[in-house]
Amino acid sequence: MIIPKIYLIGSGNVAWHLAHALIKHSLPLKGIWSRNNLTALELSNSVNVPLLSKNDLPKLQGVFFLCVSDKAIPEIADFLSSKILIHCAGSVPLSVLTAYTNNCGVFYPLQTFSKYRNLTFSDIPILIESSNKEIEKLLISLCHNLSCKNYFYTSEQRLKIHIAAVFANNFSNFMFTLAHYYLIYNHIDTDILKPLIKETFDKINSRLPIECQTGPAIRNDILTIEKHLSALKDTPDLKKFYSFVTESIYLFYRNNEKNTKF
Amino acid sequence: MIIPKIYLIGSGNVAWHLAHALIKHSLPLKGIWSRNNLTALELSNSVNVPLLSKNDLPKLQGVFFLCVSDKAIPEIADFLSSKILIHCAGSVPLSVLTAYTNNCGVFYPLQTFSKYRNLTFSDIPILIESSNKEIEKLLISLCHNLSCKNYFYTSEQRLKIHIAAVFANNFSNFMFTLAHYYLIYNHIDTDILKPLIKETFDKINSRLPIECQTGPAIRNDILTIEKHLSALKDTPDLKKFYSFVTESIYLFYRNNEKNTKF
Repeated sequence: MIIPKIYLIGSGNVAWHLAHALIKHSLPLKGIWSRNNLTALELSNSVNVPLLSKNDLPKLQGVFFLCVSDKAIPEIADFLSSKILIHCAGSVPLSVLTAYTNNCGVFYPLQTFSKYRNLTFSDIPILIESSNKEIEKLLISLCHNLSCKNYFYTSEQRLKIHIAAVFANNFSNFMFTLAHYYLIYNHIDTDILKPLIKETFDKINSRLPIECQTGPAIRNDILTIEKHLSALKDTPDLKKFYSFVTESIYLFYRNNEKNTKF
Repeated sequence: MIIPKIYLIGSGNVAWHLAHALIKHSLPLKGIWSRNNLTALELSNSVNVPLLSKNDLPKLQGVFFLCVSDKAIPEIADFLSSKILIHCAGSVPLSVLTAYTNNCGVFYPLQTFSKYRNLTFSDIPILIESSNKEIEKLLISLCHNLSCKNYFYTSEQRLKIHIAAVFANNFSNFMFTLAHYYLIYNHIDTDILKPLIKETFDKINSRLPIECQTGPAIRNDILTIEKHLSALKDTPDLKKFYSFVTESIYLFYRNNEKNTKF
C-alpha cells in the first residue's frame, strides 16, 4: 500500500519521536503544525520538514496525526473534519473522532516518551483502532513500514492498558524517585541503589512481578515497618506514603491468597 | 588475612546466596544450622557443607554469620555470646550484638534475594560496620575475597538505606505487580508492557528518576485521571491506590518546585 502524505499536528514528546521515526523510515511526512511555535520550529528543523501555519491545513490532502493533548483533540477534529484523522492517545476513545469524520483511527504507541531519549521506535507496541477497513489497512501498513508490531484493541481495552502503563511506568518511576530523594535528603550517594534496581528489573524479566515481591510489607514484619516509620518522622509525607503502600502490599497479597479482588 | 572458619546460622534467601558465594570463592564455610530443618538440609546439600545441630554450635571456633530474621538475632547472640558474631540485616543496629559480645559486626548485602535467582554476588554492595578494628579487617577481607565492594555506614545510615531500598525494590515491584494484575483481571496479555518496563529502567540508567517522570499525575491532567478512576470503579482498592499515588506525585513535584520537603 502506498502511504499518503502525512501531516503532524503537535510538537510534544510523542510528536517528536513519531516525526523522527517517520523520517528515519522514509515515510512521507510533509509538514508539521503546532500551537506552540517554538517547539514546532525546533521539531521542524530537527527533521527538516516544513513548518505549516494553521491556515494551510484545510487545503492539504493526506493523513493528519493528532499528537496533541487529549482535550485539544475534539477542537482539531472539528477544524479538520474533512480529513483522515488519527489520534495517538491512550485514554481517548475513537468515538471522539468519529463524531467529526468517518475516516479516522487511533495509533497509540505504548511507551514513555521524553525528547532527550534515543528510542528505538520499532520496539514500541502500537495499539490501533479504525473507523473502517481502509484506515485499518493504512495503519497496519504504517506500523509495517515503521517495523512496529501492531495490536488491535478497542477504545475500552486501550484505556485499561493505559491505566496499567501508569502503574508500570509512572508509579514505578515515582518509587525510584522517592528512594533517591530520601537518600539525597540524608546525604547518601544514590549510586549504592544501582545493583538493587538492576536486579529488580532482571527479576521481572524471568518471573511474574507478583512472585518477586520481598521485603517487610509482604512478610508483615511489623518490627521493621515500625523502625522505618519511626525513622521517617522528619519527612511526614514520605512516612504517610510508606505506610499506605505497605498496607496496600499486605492487603493485596492477603486478598490474593483468598482469591478476592484488590 | 587468613579468613577463619565460617559458620552460617539460617537457611533463608540471604543465607542461601551467601553460602553459595562463600563456596564459589573457596572461603571456609564449615557448617550450617537453622531452626528450619528442611531448608537447612536443602542448603547444606546444595553447597555440600555439614549440617550442624544447635548443640554443636557453642563448641565451634570461628565467625558466625547470623542470616536469621531480625527478631531472632538477640536470642542467637545470647546463645553464642563468646563467638565472633556478624549479622546481615539492614534495619538492625550493631548495638543489638554489642549487647552480647565485643567481637561483632554487620555485613549487609544491599540486594533483593530470592532462592531461585542466579545472582552475581560480587555485584552486590556490602554495607559493613564493626565493633573493633580486627572485625573491620575481617569484613573488608571477606568482601575482597568475594570480589564485593564494601561501604562503611553507621547503623543509622544503614536503616535509611534499607528504607530507600524498600522504595526502590519492594514498592516499585508492587507497581509492576498491580499493572500485571489489572491486565490479567481484564484478560489482556501482560507482554504488551515489556517494552515500556524496559524503557522505564533504561531511562533511569542515564538520568535521575526525578527527571524521568511522565504521565497524567505530573501533568495534573485531571481529564485523564478522572477517566482512569472511573474505569477503576470495579476494583475499589486499586482505585484508591491509583488516587493516592497520583495525588502524592502531584504533591511531591509541587513541593519540589517550591523547594519544600515531602
